[in-house]
Amino acid sequence: MKKFEEKTLKTTKIFTGKVIDLQIDDVSLPNGKTSKRELVKHPGAVAVIALTPKKELVLVEQYRKPLEMSILEIPAGKIEPNEEPKITALRELEEETGFTTKNLSYITSFYTSPGFADEIIHIYYTDQLVELENPILGDEDEFVEVHKLRAEEIEPAIKNKLIYDAKTLYAIQYLQLKNKY
Amino acid sequence: MKKFEEKTLKTTKIFTGKVIDLQIDDVSLPNGKTSKRELVKHPGAVAVIALTPKKELVLVEQYRKPLEMSILEIPAGKIEPNEEPKITALRELEEETGFTTKNLSYITSFYTSPGFADEIIHIYYTDQLVELENPILGDEDEFVEVHKLRAEEIEPAIKNKLIYDAKTLYAIQYLQLKNKY
Repeated sequence: MKKFEEKTLKTTKIFTGKVIDLQIDDVSLPNGKTSKRELVKHPGAVAVIALTPKKELVLVEQYRKPLEMSILEIPAGKIEPNEEPKITALRELEEETGFTTKNLSYITSFYTSPGFADEIIHIYYTDQLVELENPILGDEDEFVEVHKLRAEEIEPAIKNKLIYDAKTLYAIQYLQLKNKY
Repeated sequence: MKKFEEKTLKTTKIFTGKVIDLQIDDVSLPNGKTSKRELVKHPGAVAVIALTPKKELVLVEQYRKPLEMSILEIPAGKIEPNEEPKITALRELEEETGFTTKNLSYITSFYTSPGFADEIIHIYYTDQLVELENPILGDEDEFVEVHKLRAEEIEPAIKNKLIYDAKTLYAIQYLQLKNKY
């Protein structure tokens, strides 16, 4: 939909980074006035809800500098230029967890922060994991540790703020709603 | 947790805006190398899952410049300096929808984009809405339209990408899990 559309009058690029870019758009509002919008541009990401044969949820512990703490998240990563999201999902799953699968189902996509960022996350699901003997390793400067949590370990992890991000909480609700967990 | 902590060596402020700030931190990694982290600073936000007496979910249509489209989201807004999140929630509910409530329950909080932003959203719930005759109006440059969706209208709205953001999809799963909707 385009209701209340804000037309761009001018775009000012502020920053071009490795992960995000920042620009300010001067926009015309529906009432004829003008305003400025701060826009973070992101390439988009994927995340994988992955259950082991023992019905454990595969989570990745990673230090998140914006939060100044490490949290447990479902495996996820940025989409590389021209990469098909499902390929990204399989790559990140392998790099971060050492698992792969031949059965990856697309679940949904959502914007994480529509007020200021265009980051979209595509969510996939698998309960058909295969452990690789020699998985491709990720970036040598990426430090992650794999955790596998049984359903009864989830609520304590949320309460203790180890699980603390939107996509992972979405994933847990998905598993509960589908009676998979 | 502080596992794999990345210590800040230097912070470079890039941009200070109305909604977000951007800074680059030089960090030391667990392997002794250094790297740079692009960090978006955000004041935090609240969102309200609000059900009418007829079991309709209250949604707000708003143009989202980063997405270049308008979508339907649960009422939400930024926390003002030193504002208690529950007060923010009541204020945004009134400004955006004309409803208030004396029964607002805290549900959970989550980070929206932990890889690059510190935005946290605190989620509240009410099914005890009161329609105000003279609600406080929001910013005159904020254009929103209230929608009330019955449960059977939700799946089509998701399919048609009218509902498309993390907090609103979380809210819908919450209602389904709690058998409220």
